[in-house]
Amino acid sequence: MRNHRLLLMGLIMTTLTAPTVHADEGMWLPNRLPSDHLKATYGFEPTAQWIDHVRKSCIRFGRGGSASFVSPNGLIMTNHHVGATAIAKLSDSKHDYLHDGFYAQTRDGELSCEGLELFTLAEIRDVSKQIHDAIKPGMSPAEASAARDAVKSQIEQDATKETQLQPEIVTLYGGRQYHLYLYKKYTDIRLVFAPEQGIAFFGGDISNFEYPRYDLDVSFFRAYENGKPAKTEHFLQWSADGVSENDLVFVVGHPYRTQRIFTTSHLKLLRDVEIPMILSAYNQLEVELIQFRSEGAEHHRIGTDPLFGVQNGRKAFGGILAGLFDSHTMAQKEATQKSLQSFVQTDETRVAKWGDPWGEIEAAIKKVEDVFPAYYVSENRRMRMPTQFHVAKHLVRMAEELKKPDAERLSEYRDSKLDSIKRSIISTGPIYPDLEQLILTDALTRMGRVLGGDHAIVKAALGGQRPADRAAAILAGCKLGDQTERQRMLDGGSEAIAGSKDSMILFAKLLDGYARPLREQVEDEWESVEAAAYTRIAEAMYAKDGESVYPDATGTLRFSFGTVKSYTQQGKTIPHTTNIGGAFDLSREFKNAAPFNLPESWLRAEKKLSASTPFNYVSTCDIIGGNSGSPTVNRNGEIVGIIFDGNIQALIWDIQFEQEQARGVHVDSRAIIEALSQVYNAKALVSELQESKLASN
Amino acid sequence: MRNHRLLLMGLIMTTLTAPTVHADEGMWLPNRLPSDHLKATYGFEPTAQWIDHVRKSCIRFGRGGSASFVSPNGLIMTNHHVGATAIAKLSDSKHDYLHDGFYAQTRDGELSCEGLELFTLAEIRDVSKQIHDAIKPGMSPAEASAARDAVKSQIEQDATKETQLQPEIVTLYGGRQYHLYLYKKYTDIRLVFAPEQGIAFFGGDISNFEYPRYDLDVSFFRAYENGKPAKTEHFLQWSADGVSENDLVFVVGHPYRTQRIFTTSHLKLLRDVEIPMILSAYNQLEVELIQFRSEGAEHHRIGTDPLFGVQNGRKAFGGILAGLFDSHTMAQKEATQKSLQSFVQTDETRVAKWGDPWGEIEAAIKKVEDVFPAYYVSENRRMRMPTQFHVAKHLVRMAEELKKPDAERLSEYRDSKLDSIKRSIISTGPIYPDLEQLILTDALTRMGRVLGGDHAIVKAALGGQRPADRAAAILAGCKLGDQTERQRMLDGGSEAIAGSKDSMILFAKLLDGYARPLREQVEDEWESVEAAAYTRIAEAMYAKDGESVYPDATGTLRFSFGTVKSYTQQGKTIPHTTNIGGAFDLSREFKNAAPFNLPESWLRAEKKLSASTPFNYVSTCDIIGGNSGSPTVNRNGEIVGIIFDGNIQALIWDIQFEQEQARGVHVDSRAIIEALSQVYNAKALVSELQESKLASN
Repeated sequence: MRNHRLLLMGLIMTTLTAPTVHADEGMWLPNRLPSDHLKATYGFEPTAQWIDHVRKSCIRFGRGGSASFVSPNGLIMTNHHVGATAIAKLSDSKHDYLHDGFYAQTRDGELSCEGLELFTLAEIRDVSKQIHDAIKPGMSPAEASAARDAVKSQIEQDATKETQLQPEIVTLYGGRQYHLYLYKKYTDIRLVFAPEQGIAFFGGDISNFEYPRYDLDVSFFRAYENGKPAKTEHFLQWSADGVSENDLVFVVGHPYRTQRIFTTSHLKLLRDVEIPMILSAYNQLEVELIQFRSEGAEHHRIGTDPLFGVQNGRKAFGGILAGLFDSHTMAQKEATQKSLQSFVQTDETRVAKWGDPWGEIEAAIKKVEDVFPAYYVSENRRMRMPTQFHVAKHLVRMAEELKKPDAERLSEYRDSKLDSIKRSIISTGPIYPDLEQLILTDALTRMGRVLGGDHAIVKAALGGQRPADRAAAILAGCKLGDQTERQRMLDGGSEAIAGSKDSMILFAKLLDGYARPLREQVEDEWESVEAAAYTRIAEAMYAKDGESVYPDATGTLRFSFGTVKSYTQQGKTIPHTTNIGGAFDLSREFKNAAPFNLPESWLRAEKKLSASTPFNYVSTCDIIGGNSGSPTVNRNGEIVGIIFDGNIQALIWDIQFEQEQARGVHVDSRAIIEALSQVYNAKALVSELQESKLASN
Repeated sequence: MRNHRLLLMGLIMTTLTAPTVHADEGMWLPNRLPSDHLKATYGFEPTAQWIDHVRKSCIRFGRGGSASFVSPNGLIMTNHHVGATAIAKLSDSKHDYLHDGFYAQTRDGELSCEGLELFTLAEIRDVSKQIHDAIKPGMSPAEASAARDAVKSQIEQDATKETQLQPEIVTLYGGRQYHLYLYKKYTDIRLVFAPEQGIAFFGGDISNFEYPRYDLDVSFFRAYENGKPAKTEHFLQWSADGVSENDLVFVVGHPYRTQRIFTTSHLKLLRDVEIPMILSAYNQLEVELIQFRSEGAEHHRIGTDPLFGVQNGRKAFGGILAGLFDSHTMAQKEATQKSLQSFVQTDETRVAKWGDPWGEIEAAIKKVEDVFPAYYVSENRRMRMPTQFHVAKHLVRMAEELKKPDAERLSEYRDSKLDSIKRSIISTGPIYPDLEQLILTDALTRMGRVLGGDHAIVKAALGGQRPADRAAAILAGCKLGDQTERQRMLDGGSEAIAGSKDSMILFAKLLDGYARPLREQVEDEWESVEAAAYTRIAEAMYAKDGESVYPDATGTLRFSFGTVKSYTQQGKTIPHTTNIGGAFDLSREFKNAAPFNLPESWLRAEKKLSASTPFNYVSTCDIIGGNSGSPTVNRNGEIVGIIFDGNIQALIWDIQFEQEQARGVHVDSRAIIEALSQVYNAKALVSELQESKLASN
């Protein structure tokens, strides 16, 4: 332990003098790769064609994952855990595809995933000037925010008309730049292959965010258009060779969010207010879901997907929190901030241009931090709610929002997003009454635990009942489990909502009454101030450090790069790769007890499998949540693996990159082929992967 | 659900007009049984001899359970879950007696439980006058508190000299009365029999606080004196007949704590501050222990006892919290309080005598509630700490406290308690490094989550490290796992502590520096105010309602009574008893999967067991945590069962009794004999239970 600390100290000293970028740091915009750095460090200069091809092969999967096309016939590869929610929705009490796996031998057998939407990034336009021009001198942060919303709405509407693509305006560098991303959307997605969860998530919650690992965290889907497999011009070919240690690799996917630009006062808000609140919510729900899952086989099945989501979040936020308690991390953040502050404050022109955004953020936090608990609770932030509540909330809010001009609506109800929201209302997937009861009881209890029994929101939400009784009463009077009823309410618009006696609609209205003013306050006094301040911080950073600055993750496509690399932990070298034999060794060590129990199919196939086939490996590629399912490609743009996790040291990447010990964890492409061939006998799938050639080749 | 609510409403209306006692309400002092009520309601008048005999047969088991002597040779019966910590301490990686059970065929084979202490209540003296006389008019609450401590210390010291018994001064009716309890202590306790945890806790966490149940939650120990089985004049004989529905039964044990006297502002402090904080701590640790237990067989074994403790606490406090959100409960509490307030305020003499204790409590809460988080954290209240920390804390505090006169010490270091504390330092039971690491990491994380990273206590406790790293560093520099070292530090006294470089001692000193002023503040501004106010509330209650008032539970011996009785839930009658066949039915329904898996021994014995033997039953006896292991006796003072749980509706008994649905849950004495005979072939034990006769018979 002591040695590790010293190593880390040395590292910090280096980065303080050149505080911006480690060798492999950065989640780079597709149109801003650091070519000079890549050339200097790795002797590799990606061509525009290379970048364009990889970008168009990549997929944003559902609401928070990554994927890629891997054949010209719409075949999609992602993680098993990214596909898990869709796989769970396809399952019922007779077919548990999440637990048992699935393979469609022929295309006829591929299973349609209702409600699932995937996106590829077709085009990027810089709209910074249009948006900045909308802000006039003398506007308050709230006025500026409204003006920005108006011009964004116009840009999106124009783009939809012009291109028929799905527009999204992406705020970069904290508002220094705005890019319009135009997506091609796929809405007919079918499941092709999933292994058993036992091998996809071998080691379970214990092994999550750990390394060494032995997980086949992969699943395959297929995009269809007009009832036929989509013809995908851009897809990634399978590498014949795989990777070796020290190879340069790229991870291309959709990192959801990083917070590396955050000021120290903002990090303290995370550490002392937001993350503890989030972790308390996760801990409470995890305990309840674990109990729920032990109440019989069906509860076990339907509780599995929600439980893993909660466990994953708990571990991720717990890791960030632990890092924020480390005074070295905070000291480094403070030093970086002071260096930028001094760059600004020592020059009058810069002071005039950028002012004191750090102070503004600190002042805004003081104003709103006491509002956060009520805001989190009433807007259900980081709180799981029952499916029928989400439906009711959308219906209630749409009834109100659609009366307003596009730019004045709550941002999630802009015209550009309505189509997806309507689809989510109709195609909810199965609704399980027992799980709805558990989750609503949990949410009502949480409200009481956070705000206290005398808070107006809690009094209204509980109506003087015990949480479990209140949840039962609301669910008993709710008909939104019925798709026909959901369609009827959607078609009925604001009149239907106004007249509805559905108890969930009434409950959603009740909460909405408390949530709206709180949200408005947080948006006005915090989010718009924060946006304005980070814009100026980003401008100052850019002025100081130029091209070495990349924007924080925004859930949009980014390129990371790095090398496959072992690391040292407590004096021991952790090799860069594991192999298939290691999974069997570990299973034997634990007497094949959960979560180290290999599926039957693997136990049967042990003799056929080559034990030395590389299974998982680690790299220095800069990733974060949302990168799950990102293809790993080599210099030729060929698949050599797929990202599925980071080690525990990488959790701090949310706020700060380091590459001494922190690593991303990949499934090796060779393990995928070996398992598909030897365990699952998935010949057609293997052929499609290995034999698909680009038209241009 | 609706019907249940209406029934409850009806009940409330009744109790509001006669707000004090339901038919079977009350945890009665051994010298204050409500004889008139018992005679009127049940035609039973216990004689002084009956009470004395039962009292002297009852045992306080370790730090929070109940038990009884059941043979003249020191044989003790308690719950399996009460004995569990001792059973777990006897186990090691080769013998898991908690999981596998244990039976000593002969006395030679009985296993010595080092460090375990049991007590029987030999004598009770009323010392109210002595203590009240020490309080002079005009003293501030803090001065009164000091004066009280001084006279208490003197009484205890005198009693020890006179009787050689272990003294304890019990505060009753919130300080209206003080009784001196004198205990006979047994320190050589050996394990005789424990069933497998699988049947003792059949249904696990899911079934805890639920009914119907099928649990053999029983274990047997034996007290030794001078190396031989203790000759116990008082013990409870086994009933030949068992119980039937509507039978009057008594539960005699050590309810740990009720809070029924609490004012509404104090209940809101529980609901909005204390219980949410406690539940967050439990939720966090439960999640961590569940993960820990899945990391291999040894972790599973050593994590089991701590996990069940946490789960039990989480469920109990969760149930109280749910009840506190129920506006009917609060309305009833408010009505009772208003009625008493009006009794006081409408009479000038009463106002002069008792003032406004409700207002004083409310004012004191406002002063200290913000201090509670830091107080809880620094004094480790409701927070599990590593065993070696407890040792270090006692050593550090004893070094300081023993310099002071007895009356001025922190109350746990009075002379009367030193012997037990020293024993606990030496006989800690096994110390598991991995579990110590987990628990210390949990505690450090908790401190940060509760107080934030910039709080002085957190900064000091973490020393700028991640919680896991800091915990590892402290444990690496701690030698207190070694018994010789603990003895050496104990013998060395304050000099040894002052010179110690042991990192756990240093850590305990560090925390102690923060904890002492906070504890002093809470004791002065809250606990002494609260004690004085509740004394006056109790006096007013007594003046108003006379003999129908019983004091809140204090962890000392109490008699409860009630009848064996079915109840109605959601329109269905829940029968008063289950039978052994039901356990097999439930196990089959769950395909014998955990937590509904019967042990091998039971599966093998199914044919021999009589399926119709009553297994568990419910009664209206007024119980709470700490009553676990209490013997259930009939009018003849004979064993007809043993309390092991309450149903979910009984959790609210902590603050309010009701007997519509709330029930205590017992193991039927006939199931114990049937299982010992047919499953465990424990002939000697069965004979000792059934054939022991009182000398006087």
